[in-house]
Amino acid sequence: MESISKAAFRRLPRYHQILNAFEGLGREYISSRELSEILEINETLVRKDMADLKIRGKQNQGYSIAALRLRIEDFLGLQEITEALVVGAGHLGTALATYAGFEHYGLKIVGVFDSDPEKIGKRQGAHDVLPVSRLASVIQRKQIRMIILTVPREVAQGIIDTAVGAGVLAVWNFTPCELNVPPGVKVRNEQIVGGFMALSYYLKNVSGGGED
Amino acid sequence: MESISKAAFRRLPRYHQILNAFEGLGREYISSRELSEILEINETLVRKDMADLKIRGKQNQGYSIAALRLRIEDFLGLQEITEALVVGAGHLGTALATYAGFEHYGLKIVGVFDSDPEKIGKRQGAHDVLPVSRLASVIQRKQIRMIILTVPREVAQGIIDTAVGAGVLAVWNFTPCELNVPPGVKVRNEQIVGGFMALSYYLKNVSGGGED
Repeated sequence: MESISKAAFRRLPRYHQILNAFEGLGREYISSRELSEILEINETLVRKDMADLKIRGKQNQGYSIAALRLRIEDFLGLQEITEALVVGAGHLGTALATYAGFEHYGLKIVGVFDSDPEKIGKRQGAHDVLPVSRLASVIQRKQIRMIILTVPREVAQGIIDTAVGAGVLAVWNFTPCELNVPPGVKVRNEQIVGGFMALSYYLKNVSGGGED
Repeated sequence: MESISKAAFRRLPRYHQILNAFEGLGREYISSRELSEILEINETLVRKDMADLKIRGKQNQGYSIAALRLRIEDFLGLQEITEALVVGAGHLGTALATYAGFEHYGLKIVGVFDSDPEKIGKRQGAHDVLPVSRLASVIQRKQIRMIILTVPREVAQGIIDTAVGAGVLAVWNFTPCELNVPPGVKVRNEQIVGGFMALSYYLKNVSGGGED
């Protein structure tokens, strides 16, 4: 397995986002200085990240945006299709299940599940909502390796046990629960409110217009 | 302004989430070892973070969960109410505008805006969707300092210019745009797809059941 430092790994999504934004503006090259200013990190750190990715810049031009973007996508496996199921058809589950942008990253939602009889059978994006009782059989039949969890906390662990038992290896967890999974299963805890915390800290300390 | 290292600051939301989860299970104390195992970081780093927060553990018991949680909330300003407006009443905007969990963090959504005539006037959670044309006047009248942006990328910068002109100091950006803001305005780029990237990398490299 190719590997880079944890901190560099954490920066890859932001690099990717910035490259996309610049590409959308018609730019072909980006400099380490530009990347460092946008990311608010040291330019030498950007250069080290690029070296880790085995990406070289051109003198006076910087890095090829397309080449760097493709390199990150290849490194992260985004050029392969990952089929995933959304469990929990509330507002957030609906937002995730119907978000068209995921396809640019190779993420394909192939089913949506809920336990609410009022939601089951309703259309959601490209899918009819299925009952959670069918989750395990769909995972097995379609050989699904990833689920996206947006259910109430009381039922989260039970659903994970079912999904992992059926063969799921990766869990994108939008619940506030600390899930127990066996070794070999990866959980990503998505804590949306964390972003607010950073802004709250800023607002608390900004009085007078200072910056953090 | 109180300050801690950037890395420690980034960990505060996860600490807070873990403390909430343990509190929900009826636990009163948590050890640096437990925190280090859940966070997958070195135990000495946990101890350093606690020292930075001026939190002391008890021998053989660990840290008081309630005291540590309150300390983090105080540090981040979560005990004060932050009023915010959601701009963009799509699925994600609706999920954010109606998410009851935010109130535990002091975040209060006090209005929802959209430019789509079909959405304007519709009820969304506790609010009727207002036209974006009224955004600046509402920001000024209610002295709003934060907006949550979930609009299409084409209109994102224009809305930010309006909001910042009206007095907004903090932007929680769920669009994929790199927003330009004047000094003194803080933007938090929320890149939900970043979580998927980490899982994609795991799945790409897991063949055979290995772990990263």
